[in-house]
Amino acid sequence: MSKLIVQKFGGTSVGSIERIKAVAEKTLRARNKGADLVVVVSAMGGETDRLLDMAKEITEHMDRREVDMLLSSGERISAALLTIALHAIGCPAISLTGRQLGMKTDGSHTRARIKEIDGARTKKLLSENHVIVAAGFQGINEQGDVTTLGRGGSDTSAVALAVALGADQCEIYTDVAGVYTADPRIVPKAKKLNSVSFDEMLEMASLGASVLQIRCVEFAKNFNMPIVVRSSFRENDEGTIVCRENLNMEQPVVSGVMCDKKQSKITVKGAPDNPGIAAKVFSALNETNISIDMIIQNMSDDGLTDISFTLPTADSLEATKLMEKVGKEIHANNVSCDSDISKVSVVGAGMRSHSGVAAKMFEILAKEHINLLMISTSEIRISCVIEKKYAELAVNALHDGFGLSSDSSGDTP
Amino acid sequence: MSKLIVQKFGGTSVGSIERIKAVAEKTLRARNKGADLVVVVSAMGGETDRLLDMAKEITEHMDRREVDMLLSSGERISAALLTIALHAIGCPAISLTGRQLGMKTDGSHTRARIKEIDGARTKKLLSENHVIVAAGFQGINEQGDVTTLGRGGSDTSAVALAVALGADQCEIYTDVAGVYTADPRIVPKAKKLNSVSFDEMLEMASLGASVLQIRCVEFAKNFNMPIVVRSSFRENDEGTIVCRENLNMEQPVVSGVMCDKKQSKITVKGAPDNPGIAAKVFSALNETNISIDMIIQNMSDDGLTDISFTLPTADSLEATKLMEKVGKEIHANNVSCDSDISKVSVVGAGMRSHSGVAAKMFEILAKEHINLLMISTSEIRISCVIEKKYAELAVNALHDGFGLSSDSSGDTP
Repeated sequence: MSKLIVQKFGGTSVGSIERIKAVAEKTLRARNKGADLVVVVSAMGGETDRLLDMAKEITEHMDRREVDMLLSSGERISAALLTIALHAIGCPAISLTGRQLGMKTDGSHTRARIKEIDGARTKKLLSENHVIVAAGFQGINEQGDVTTLGRGGSDTSAVALAVALGADQCEIYTDVAGVYTADPRIVPKAKKLNSVSFDEMLEMASLGASVLQIRCVEFAKNFNMPIVVRSSFRENDEGTIVCRENLNMEQPVVSGVMCDKKQSKITVKGAPDNPGIAAKVFSALNETNISIDMIIQNMSDDGLTDISFTLPTADSLEATKLMEKVGKEIHANNVSCDSDISKVSVVGAGMRSHSGVAAKMFEILAKEHINLLMISTSEIRISCVIEKKYAELAVNALHDGFGLSSDSSGDTP
Repeated sequence: MSKLIVQKFGGTSVGSIERIKAVAEKTLRARNKGADLVVVVSAMGGETDRLLDMAKEITEHMDRREVDMLLSSGERISAALLTIALHAIGCPAISLTGRQLGMKTDGSHTRARIKEIDGARTKKLLSENHVIVAAGFQGINEQGDVTTLGRGGSDTSAVALAVALGADQCEIYTDVAGVYTADPRIVPKAKKLNSVSFDEMLEMASLGASVLQIRCVEFAKNFNMPIVVRSSFRENDEGTIVCRENLNMEQPVVSGVMCDKKQSKITVKGAPDNPGIAAKVFSALNETNISIDMIIQNMSDDGLTDISFTLPTADSLEATKLMEKVGKEIHANNVSCDSDISKVSVVGAGMRSHSGVAAKMFEILAKEHINLLMISTSEIRISCVIEKKYAELAVNALHDGFGLSSDSSGDTP
């Protein structure tokens, strides 16, 4: 039986007719190597914004069902165009919508979750020698209404289809060459990783590496579906494989250094140190959609307590207002918000078996005279909040200090 | 029970966000008068061409299934936007695709025919007080694939929905004020008709009146569904009602004068007058998609025969080539094509009971010294082929001669 590969091309990769033709050529080459193919496409770059902008000209308050009806057109258009381009170069192909792919979701419009995929039709068409061109990002709910999967939904479509169809591999084509040891825009010596584990990728994604969405990586991890991330525009690049950790191999202690400059820190100062204060603060936040990252609670000498937490800067205004309200109720002295911070993190599956990574990280930062405002850790990650002006310095120092700059395991971009 | 009205808005009427908002206002006014509403929309003006142009950049030879997938997006977009616009002014509304409307068609992609409409969901949503915004032009075939209904398909969608849902009336909103006694661009004195019968409208549509497609009128006639044609842009206009003839009323002898300048005449000259010559000519044409209009066969004194027929000028090159081939086979002397002709016609249900209309028509044209090249008639129509340079003169003379210019039954445009 031939190998089944699911390929996914994002909006930039199908952003023009020229690029759609290039994707068709790439697909045909993969097919000529003997693979069965399901090609998942996003809307053409800019199309989703064009549609949303028209709706926003009418109102900012759109019914989410209608937004799904509107936006799901984008992927249908690119799927039809890619199929036409495949036919034009003699490759049998057929486009399928979310419904035709059997992509069944729950009813949450604009952020639906996949419940089940009925792959019968897709399998039949594959056995009849078609390349399947799948409209990403969309499914249908129980009422038969179109739903969309939210941001990064096409990646999730691709991984879910790969799992449902028992594919050998899921390839995500994007505008970068793979997953890097650090953001090359900040760290000139950053290198492309040949492989990264699901857990590392999850940490990197939650730290702001935009190459893959957390949701799609979680899906891949749960079903052990290897993902290859590679560039649409560079033909012979191997990209980065995201897969289960290979326990027989020596893991690098640190795989990547991440930096998030869009974080803010809110501090509720001088609250009486009664039981339940923290609960009041965070249950109030929980009722919003704001996601909190690090949390620190300090006791000061005078029996009062300070609670600090970090969150995306985009949410900081709303959260500060909310905290000012809560602060009054719990008789805190004041609430402050600091947006001049950044979070730098090191991620590596090897940390599980290596102690001393935290100590080394703090040492590297101390050598640069960078003060640590907050610290948090997971099994394979250490994050520090520092003043924003030191962010680039810190990331480059950590990249050098953990040997990523000189390592020969990756390629320079 | 409240009145159910199906309204249809074409591409020009939903051609911009401003116009979509205007349609929403118009719909809300109709609803506030107590009607239940199904609003059928076409793609935004220009959108279908935009999509087709992209596909043509890839290839001229597109798979028709994929063309349907591509084009059907256009109506989904306008349906979602109109629904969002209705919500924005406080009107409960929901968009439905061809599939969700239960619009089942045969399998002929890009020119599917409606087989059946399962209106259960639409009826339920109507009873729940929604305005239904229906994506026109599209349905699904037995495989669940999207089909489109071909040119003028949204009009047909509207009439078919009106029939299936038992609507009281179907209103087609367009960029003209209704059906006219003649094309106002050619006949300055042309007037809007208040009513016209299905049969008259069918003749007018087949003579090139673009206000309604033949197919949609046939559908309306078969199910006796009255159609009101009116302007999207003029609020208090009554438009023209297309309905069954009211036999109790005196019919005007002639309702309209039509002119088709895009006709050509092909003549196969000097074929031996054997049985089966005409059959050979027209069976050859029948194998193409060219539709032939008038046919004349003459015998000349020398035992040879001439066969002439008219057809759309767009097809004349292909037909001439075909006839040159057939001409050789049947030993005809030569084949000629004349594109300097026009067809002028008078249409009127009153002709059934009035003799002498043909004689009067020929007399009016003779008075202007216009020679008749061919003549054909139906029960309610007389058409003459004349030299193209006389077309405007002929139409205006007929419009005056049959009393349409002075008649007070219509409005000036």
